[in-house]
Amino acid sequence: MRPKKPDIDRIFHALGDPTRRAIMEKLSHGPISVSRLAEPLDITLAAVVQHLQVLEESGLVQTEKVGRVRTCRIEPAGLAAAGQWIDDRRSVWERRLDRLGDILALPDETE
Amino acid sequence: MRPKKPDIDRIFHALGDPTRRAIMEKLSHGPISVSRLAEPLDITLAAVVQHLQVLEESGLVQTEKVGRVRTCRIEPAGLAAAGQWIDDRRSVWERRLDRLGDILALPDETE
Repeated sequence: MRPKKPDIDRIFHALGDPTRRAIMEKLSHGPISVSRLAEPLDITLAAVVQHLQVLEESGLVQTEKVGRVRTCRIEPAGLAAAGQWIDDRRSVWERRLDRLGDILALPDETE
Repeated sequence: MRPKKPDIDRIFHALGDPTRRAIMEKLSHGPISVSRLAEPLDITLAAVVQHLQVLEESGLVQTEKVGRVRTCRIEPAGLAAAGQWIDDRRSVWERRLDRLGDILALPDETE
């Protein structure tokens, strides 16, 4: 299946859940089958499948079924889109701080 | 009021809403009063106040009331915490790709 286009609303919503973030942490170390993903998480396979659906719909994760095994992997474009949104806000905010710093460094002409 | 400690669950949940992201975009250009924030967003003041509460509870925004005016500003630690979480996942994932690249570059000893 082709990966979903990153959906920034769904990406941030998906990352707002600690179990889904734990899945992303696990997947950052490499692709893994759904059943092996469920083992250390101490939740049912059905719950993992549901979380994976949310992650896949957002564009953060890609899954592929070969035979009877479904393998999950990180879809890097999803994390990149979320990181870019955050970086853009921070850079606007930091440029503003730099400008304020420049103004404060100017000699005070009222003296 | 002291800013809230960043809460990563609440931060990502808060950023999953397009109106709240629009508020963050506006605030990245500098502090602004609640009423001026509401003007271009084409939603009621009550709705803006609700969104601001979600952003403030997560640690993304700080608000302060002086006299009758409540001013909102970005709390940079919130965006930094979210950015750090994303960067950490991406760097683990990229280091793994680098290692795979190194393995592929090794001479094939079975030849």
